[in-house]
Amino acid sequence: MNSTATPARLSTADSSFEADFKARLHWSAETDAGIEQRVADILADVQARGDAAVLDYTTRFDGLQAATMAELELTQAELKAAFETLPEVQRSALESAAKRVRSYHEAQKKASGESWSYRDDDGTLLGQKVTPLDRVGIYVPGGKAAYPSSVLMNAIPAHVAGVGEIIMVVPTPKGEKNALVLAAAYVAGVTRAFTIGGAQAVAALAYGTATVPKVDKITGPGNAYVASAKKRVFGVVGIDMIAGPSEILVLADGTTPPDWVAMDLFSQAEHDELAQSILLCPDAAYIAQVQASITKLLPEMPRREIIAKSLNDRGALILTRSMEEACAISNRIAPEHLEVSSRDPHRWEPLLKHAGAIFLGAFTSESLGDYCAGPNHVLPTSGTARFSSPLGVYDFQKRSSLIEVSEAGAQTLGQIASVLAHGEGLQAHARAAEMRLHSQA
Amino acid sequence: MNSTATPARLSTADSSFEADFKARLHWSAETDAGIEQRVADILADVQARGDAAVLDYTTRFDGLQAATMAELELTQAELKAAFETLPEVQRSALESAAKRVRSYHEAQKKASGESWSYRDDDGTLLGQKVTPLDRVGIYVPGGKAAYPSSVLMNAIPAHVAGVGEIIMVVPTPKGEKNALVLAAAYVAGVTRAFTIGGAQAVAALAYGTATVPKVDKITGPGNAYVASAKKRVFGVVGIDMIAGPSEILVLADGTTPPDWVAMDLFSQAEHDELAQSILLCPDAAYIAQVQASITKLLPEMPRREIIAKSLNDRGALILTRSMEEACAISNRIAPEHLEVSSRDPHRWEPLLKHAGAIFLGAFTSESLGDYCAGPNHVLPTSGTARFSSPLGVYDFQKRSSLIEVSEAGAQTLGQIASVLAHGEGLQAHARAAEMRLHSQA
Repeated sequence: MNSTATPARLSTADSSFEADFKARLHWSAETDAGIEQRVADILADVQARGDAAVLDYTTRFDGLQAATMAELELTQAELKAAFETLPEVQRSALESAAKRVRSYHEAQKKASGESWSYRDDDGTLLGQKVTPLDRVGIYVPGGKAAYPSSVLMNAIPAHVAGVGEIIMVVPTPKGEKNALVLAAAYVAGVTRAFTIGGAQAVAALAYGTATVPKVDKITGPGNAYVASAKKRVFGVVGIDMIAGPSEILVLADGTTPPDWVAMDLFSQAEHDELAQSILLCPDAAYIAQVQASITKLLPEMPRREIIAKSLNDRGALILTRSMEEACAISNRIAPEHLEVSSRDPHRWEPLLKHAGAIFLGAFTSESLGDYCAGPNHVLPTSGTARFSSPLGVYDFQKRSSLIEVSEAGAQTLGQIASVLAHGEGLQAHARAAEMRLHSQA
Repeated sequence: MNSTATPARLSTADSSFEADFKARLHWSAETDAGIEQRVADILADVQARGDAAVLDYTTRFDGLQAATMAELELTQAELKAAFETLPEVQRSALESAAKRVRSYHEAQKKASGESWSYRDDDGTLLGQKVTPLDRVGIYVPGGKAAYPSSVLMNAIPAHVAGVGEIIMVVPTPKGEKNALVLAAAYVAGVTRAFTIGGAQAVAALAYGTATVPKVDKITGPGNAYVASAKKRVFGVVGIDMIAGPSEILVLADGTTPPDWVAMDLFSQAEHDELAQSILLCPDAAYIAQVQASITKLLPEMPRREIIAKSLNDRGALILTRSMEEACAISNRIAPEHLEVSSRDPHRWEPLLKHAGAIFLGAFTSESLGDYCAGPNHVLPTSGTARFSSPLGVYDFQKRSSLIEVSEAGAQTLGQIASVLAHGEGLQAHARAAEMRLHSQA
């Protein structure tokens, strides 16, 4: 095998930079009309036939023969057994990661997910009550890309939020179960788990069947069918973001060992060929060193074919005029993962406006964040960090406004509401306010 | 005219209750395939032709002739003039409402929208940075249902969040502008405003044109075309919820004047014929009094035809066995607006899990909340309060995780990440963690 990886070399000083940069970033989430139609049909079928439809599709797509949905449920005993048969080092790593992820999300809940209220001088109370969702569904991909860490990252924030029931679905093509995924479900406190996947699993969670309980929200990544199904059931249930390919952007001032940066770029590229790894750096000599590290380290990597294709097709090493310019370009990209590989990361952090997660300093490799630092690894991709956030406790909570207008408050508010309601031609609104006025009582 | 309004009378003690209740609640957000296709075409056309396409559709659908998009922009001077020519009582009501809405959302930002972080014992920093969206679009319906209060409720939380630019679109069919809507845009601090609407306005905001700037998120209600367009551009930009018909649920213990409750039911019903007004009460005699108030008050209402149709087709007066049972039924409905019309509302509030906004006590008419109490009137409808929240400052902010692993932290975290990454078959992830270990340096 003779892989080489030479990410595109761009420079912001080149006249062709804008065009080259846009071409490199281009990724289209275009939907396939064929997939959309098949997904619509599967959703309608599961809505109409329930369990029977789910069983049919599971046989057809996953090669799993089951007479009843009950056979496709994983028992708690099975999840526990999967955990207990793992090597001690894996059990301990799962538990340590879960503990840190839990602590972080508890801090998140405390900082931004508690109920609050205040009273006006006239005694009127205003606030918001924050409550957990009753029941959520977590989609966990099966087969090759089965990630136990994703089970932790989806289930733990739901658990911390106080969600009553966490229903996991994970396809097991031809019956192949991933012990680490089952063990992670045990550690994370999943309530029930079914070995179903695809659009049929999303439909079962969104509409409910005789066996699979209807949930309030579905989170977790999946293939094009899963993404299309989630988008289609949005509104019937809540969903998290539709994820695109994973990306890393490294802002480097040239002080981090180049091997470390090369390996961080690899760690994104190894996910899949569409993954994107970009380095922004004002130091041309350092960029050359990183390229040398890439060339040197690539042959050691078991997933070198994927890494090479990802870096060659979508990677870029970009020379900037300054770190400030690098920060500005980063804001245009709004990357999922943003490493500030600098001796002085807090100098640059305030300039960074849009990113899913910001990894500060040379010791903060993205992979530490992916598994166990604590923050969530489910992050907005494809520039959606411009308007969305990491998965968090807040995704498993909802808010209800609280309003208690005092008798005195009703006198002042009633006058205002009356004027505005008449202005909108809504006389019953006006009358409802006026009836509470003393002058009208 | 001879309108009568007799909402369905149900009792939880009846054997037919479950069936009757479900039939009454039934509302389908079914999408019209014809509308979906036309919207898809409009979006594609605006993406391809930009301003020219927007101008064409505005001529065709709104009967507005304009040679250039610039003619469809409302200047700040025009917004200001609209405000200044209003009667003093309307100016003052708009300003008072805006002030209260702003105070509430400032409290909301402080309670749940600030950045936070903490350090582990080993010096590792974890947290979240909260930042405003750069630019948002606000859709304001035009024509008959033009609500200036919606301008305040969408623009003010964006403003409080710190959004840089707020772009309003409002269709003005045949050129008819609503002075209160323009004045509200002035009071709320809208940055730019265009007299465009429909799917073409959503497309212009989502993709950007030569004249209309591309935004990061689109909020605000609209007709079926607008809803379909928003759902379709979700992912390219953020969107708020897709709204269904408005609803009120009144939980009454029989202590509020029945006229007040009747008028509160009217104030929901007058929105449109699909709006839903439901009373839950354990006191049969009180229910009869409310029905008598309905019959007495209806003839006075200018919008009595709409109110009557809404109450007859979708309204219900439900006799429950107890207030506790009423609370449980309310949780099943997860209403948009929930009035707890009781002498002791705080006794029941803890039992209420799902609702967009909870109005406590007899003086808190929904209409006070709609206009000026302070909380947002953009609320989750059709049971989506089970998983979503009122529009708020948080809808105009996004979060970036912050992670700074210390050198010491990298030693413990690196071991965990290495084990888990190998378990997932992602060796570059493992190596990136291992490279930071002293034993490997």
